[in-house]
Amino acid sequence: MKILVPDNTELELDLPDDVDVVPFTEGKAIPEEHLDAEAVVAWGASPNSLGSMAKDMPNLRWVQSLSAGVDAFLAAGIPDRVILTTGRGLHDQTVSEHAVALLMSLARQLPSYFRAQENHEWLQDRRGPKPMADPERVSTLIDARVLIWGFGSIGQTLAPIMQALGAKQVRGVARRAGMREGFEVVDDVDQVLPETDVLVMILPSDEQTTHALNAERIALLPDRSIVVNVGRGTTVDEEALVAALREGKLAGAGLDVMEAEPLPEDSPLWDAPNTVLTPHVAGFRAHGAKELIESNFRAWRNRVPMRNAVPL
Amino acid sequence: MKILVPDNTELELDLPDDVDVVPFTEGKAIPEEHLDAEAVVAWGASPNSLGSMAKDMPNLRWVQSLSAGVDAFLAAGIPDRVILTTGRGLHDQTVSEHAVALLMSLARQLPSYFRAQENHEWLQDRRGPKPMADPERVSTLIDARVLIWGFGSIGQTLAPIMQALGAKQVRGVARRAGMREGFEVVDDVDQVLPETDVLVMILPSDEQTTHALNAERIALLPDRSIVVNVGRGTTVDEEALVAALREGKLAGAGLDVMEAEPLPEDSPLWDAPNTVLTPHVAGFRAHGAKELIESNFRAWRNRVPMRNAVPL
Repeated sequence: MKILVPDNTELELDLPDDVDVVPFTEGKAIPEEHLDAEAVVAWGASPNSLGSMAKDMPNLRWVQSLSAGVDAFLAAGIPDRVILTTGRGLHDQTVSEHAVALLMSLARQLPSYFRAQENHEWLQDRRGPKPMADPERVSTLIDARVLIWGFGSIGQTLAPIMQALGAKQVRGVARRAGMREGFEVVDDVDQVLPETDVLVMILPSDEQTTHALNAERIALLPDRSIVVNVGRGTTVDEEALVAALREGKLAGAGLDVMEAEPLPEDSPLWDAPNTVLTPHVAGFRAHGAKELIESNFRAWRNRVPMRNAVPL
Repeated sequence: MKILVPDNTELELDLPDDVDVVPFTEGKAIPEEHLDAEAVVAWGASPNSLGSMAKDMPNLRWVQSLSAGVDAFLAAGIPDRVILTTGRGLHDQTVSEHAVALLMSLARQLPSYFRAQENHEWLQDRRGPKPMADPERVSTLIDARVLIWGFGSIGQTLAPIMQALGAKQVRGVARRAGMREGFEVVDDVDQVLPETDVLVMILPSDEQTTHALNAERIALLPDRSIVVNVGRGTTVDEEALVAALREGKLAGAGLDVMEAEPLPEDSPLWDAPNTVLTPHVAGFRAHGAKELIESNFRAWRNRVPMRNAVPL
């Protein structure tokens, strides 16, 4: 049997001898002689490859995504006979790190220091004693209340990091309330937004999450709060976000994902005050991919449940 | 008795009724009618106030600094009869946070994204799978080896944060080797620099630490490593650092402290590649100052050992 594996990922897979592991280039069409493969490992970023998978691979039975999100695969219309397993968990640590980078750069006002650095300017007036709880903006995680909206595996990885950084309170928002991994999870976001200093959004993209953070909900946040989005861009109403940042109704925003990617050159987001933008780069390092693929291969062959299998 | 307290710090001190707590403005001379005070709480950033303390306060017996470093007080020549207690511990969490902000902004290449943002430019070519261990630069703390040079209370606060962020190994460097707070501490920095991906410097300023990180030691670090300094600027040879950054012998540097502050406009540091500079702002939030002052006041009055007392 044949399994296609992306050629841009360092995976030295340890699979049985009868398995033909064939590298392929995502973004290009899959070569004709390999359209007979039974399984494909893919990042899923490329519509071309996904289109081929869906249409031209009659023997395809299993797709192992290396991404956490499945939107691209679902959009490509992969047929029912195929098992889709996601890369859930592979990006927990790196996406959490990116959220920390965005959050801490805003808390410590790095955008203003970057501009000063370009001008060889030492901002002496920033020195001097500060209140622990700056009414203008969250400047330290000490005593901060952190809310993680979307409390899946990434959120559950980020929560203890926020605690280690000194946050007074770390809560999650999810469809079901309760305790998860030692953290309180609430189901009514509107009720807790007024008690939030740092809001980290890690929501998937689907119909229910479109503009989850809208003007009304931004208004519920304290003016000193910071919003970080490392989930999907569709979950934030960017127009409302920019308006709030301009009016000082929000102290900062760190976004790795946008409603439209690439972000159009004329988007008002680029110049919104106290905003840090990165071009959807939080993940892209599949930590533990080899182990996940090998274990899912064994499960697939032995017809036992696979990790991260999603209904198509 | 009379105790002077800086007017820029929100301290609602709970002291006995016979104590006269008088606010004063650091940076200005202490008013003549208050030169009789027995105790002073001070940040110590101002040579003027310090000069007064040393010369013109005959009854002065105790100075409680809110800073972790005592270099400014020692330089002011406070007389032997005065007990100096430092703000050691007050800044552990905030300085650690600042180190995280500098480190993560470099690991995630935020300087390049800031520049792109100014130009409304989406760096699409940064997207795509990355190796877990990027040979060019540390881009994630997963599997990273962190070395904290200067393993006092700030270093011991930072170490578990680095661990929570996923570092594979966190070690300290101090004068005495051994285990401290569960972390391995070594005394020979030259031996461990070649095994270091992230070097965080938190050394005090004294004769032994001048240019502790010099050209020879920078050369011992792997090219992909990142250096962060939140201790004192004198501990890094900036000329050697800039040369290494320019030659790609170091992947990045995040500095909150400089050899000369304010950093001169013509310093080559401003334009060094992959460098993030902040104007000595890591601390300035005295977390737990009220409790420290009150407890030291009681100890002082009862003639029992005070916290953070230093020999003058």
